[in-house]
Amino acid sequence: MKKYAIVVAGGKGLRMGGEIPKQFIPVQGRPVLMRTLDAFHAYDESVELIVVLPVAQQGYWNELCREYDFRIPYRLADGGETRFHSVANGLAEVPDGETDALVAVHDGVRPFVSREVIAACYESAFRKRAAIPVAEVVETLRCLKSDGTEGGSATVDRAQYRLVQTPQTFRADVLKAAYRQEYRPFFTDDASVVEAMGVPVSLVPGNRENIKITTPFDLKIAEALLSD
Amino acid sequence: MKKYAIVVAGGKGLRMGGEIPKQFIPVQGRPVLMRTLDAFHAYDESVELIVVLPVAQQGYWNELCREYDFRIPYRLADGGETRFHSVANGLAEVPDGETDALVAVHDGVRPFVSREVIAACYESAFRKRAAIPVAEVVETLRCLKSDGTEGGSATVDRAQYRLVQTPQTFRADVLKAAYRQEYRPFFTDDASVVEAMGVPVSLVPGNRENIKITTPFDLKIAEALLSD
Repeated sequence: MKKYAIVVAGGKGLRMGGEIPKQFIPVQGRPVLMRTLDAFHAYDESVELIVVLPVAQQGYWNELCREYDFRIPYRLADGGETRFHSVANGLAEVPDGETDALVAVHDGVRPFVSREVIAACYESAFRKRAAIPVAEVVETLRCLKSDGTEGGSATVDRAQYRLVQTPQTFRADVLKAAYRQEYRPFFTDDASVVEAMGVPVSLVPGNRENIKITTPFDLKIAEALLSD
Repeated sequence: MKKYAIVVAGGKGLRMGGEIPKQFIPVQGRPVLMRTLDAFHAYDESVELIVVLPVAQQGYWNELCREYDFRIPYRLADGGETRFHSVANGLAEVPDGETDALVAVHDGVRPFVSREVIAACYESAFRKRAAIPVAEVVETLRCLKSDGTEGGSATVDRAQYRLVQTPQTFRADVLKAAYRQEYRPFFTDDASVVEAMGVPVSLVPGNRENIKITTPFDLKIAEALLSD
């Protein structure tokens, strides 16, 4: 079966406090987004990569690719107004009618996804149409009570919750049908878009290192993970 | 007002895969538990420290203290069967009848709590009797459905949830009364023990670096946080 990966790097990088969007920041000498693409390429060279970037960032990225002599092939799609629109743009690069194609949608700032997790997501999506990697909650979890009053929170059973990672992976026809729906504000990730069509999403274990690099603290962790 | 800190290091360290309980592992050349005690001492030298350790680990700890010439004063209490019993043993070292004393209960494996968070917890506990530091959930959060069937999970609004850190901080009389209750299995942290008495717990912002060191991955992060 044909495998695609849509790598979404729409972030404006404002949370880093600097000028460079976080996906372009070098970690141990190589930009985050390149490391993310490396991860899929190392898993399987035949995965077709689609990088979604805001138009305003594409020139910078192309320069980086020259500077680092980045040779992994990929197609470039334009970032949209929201993540939903960015993924839709990436999905337009996946041909219609490939009946058993699979599409993984992955955050450009998650370079530490393991080969095993990528494999498990594609395999589970092949069998069950939709699969996402999740991690257990390791700290006590509280839920705020809606009235917002003092003391308005209570401990919930953390064993009943999961933190969601990417790649969120789907049969191409299912994901394409889902993204033909009109955008709704509760579409916070691809799983929620697919579920809105009534398709259940299966959970596979993620890897702990598969962090989303969005803050200087995360960058520090990233440096540490690569320093062995 | 008088301030106490009960630092609980009951962990057997089994999750580290090694022989040394995690609180004793040196990070950048100094054992985790010492760094945790350093944090409270650096915040305010007058805080009375109570270290709760399993009896079987006390010899090793005493050796470490000699080896590192650890000079911060503290009292030692014996670890109990559960965290509840360990905290109760630590609390026995806090005198009764000090009407405005405050007690912080802190994980021995959280050396990166900031001075600001410690201060905010004591201050909020002084005003409101009970305060705990919490962090926002930065990833998509799903709740499993109780029937456990395939696709049995749904995204919840992560803005309504908080991850709980320590020091969980209380007026001494309130915490002592709470710990006179009989142990119940849902007492997963000190806040839950106090809430079972009907006392509301106020939330203060924690610090992102205030991680609980329980895995080799956490140790790696800890090394990175100290490498600046």
